Amino acid sequence: MPKPAHHVLVCLNARPPGNPKGSCAEKGSEELFDALKAMVKERGLPVIVNRTNCLKHCSRGITVAVHPGNVWYAGVTQADLPEIVEAHLENGTPVERLFMPDIPWE
Amino acid sequence: MPKPAHHVLVCLNARPPGNPKGSCAEKGSEELFDALKAMVKERGLPVIVNRTNCLKHCSRGITVAVHPGNVWYAGVTQADLPEIVEAHLENGTPVERLFMPDIPWE
Repeated sequence: MPKPAHHVLVCLNARPPGNPKGSCAEKGSEELFDALKAMVKERGLPVIVNRTNCLKHCSRGITVAVHPGNVWYAGVTQADLPEIVEAHLENGTPVERLFMPDIPWE
Repeated sequence: MPKPAHHVLVCLNARPPGNPKGSCAEKGSEELFDALKAMVKERGLPVIVNRTNCLKHCSRGITVAVHPGNVWYAGVTQADLPEIVEAHLENGTPVERLFMPDIPWE
């Protein structure tokens, strides 16, 4: 698999408790990242899942970006992962209900 | 800028000195990441630059991926940054001489 069919980026940025911006880490992005990696591996998908620093949508986290398509998801929870994996990563149809609104970077 | 025109991922994975795989961090990817972010900011480009964990081409690092286009660069040094920024991120023409060969993930 020289190049991945999808490249998934999960924001793992952490801020101290009480920071007004909040952060994806405090919403459980470490566990989300681990769970998504495990699902992709279990299904043998040609997908690379990486952890990143801040994806600039802190108040809407957990933020997840998927390429190709420049698809940005907001408020992702573990409950959303099966749908993202099956619809988007397996079958190529992004999950519209999770799309990040057109807001400025934070 | 609701969505970035380009999303650049720089591998910041670190391994202990002497590890046979090597790592991008030991080749200076932290400094490369900082320099690239500064160049993008200075030019005001609609580009987001993120640091990631392992991009799976350790022996060919420093590894940098750019979306859209699923462009993967190998052996990137600070000397290559002006060309990547000007040709690819500003003018949309990837830098072919730095393309990652079609090798398996490591």
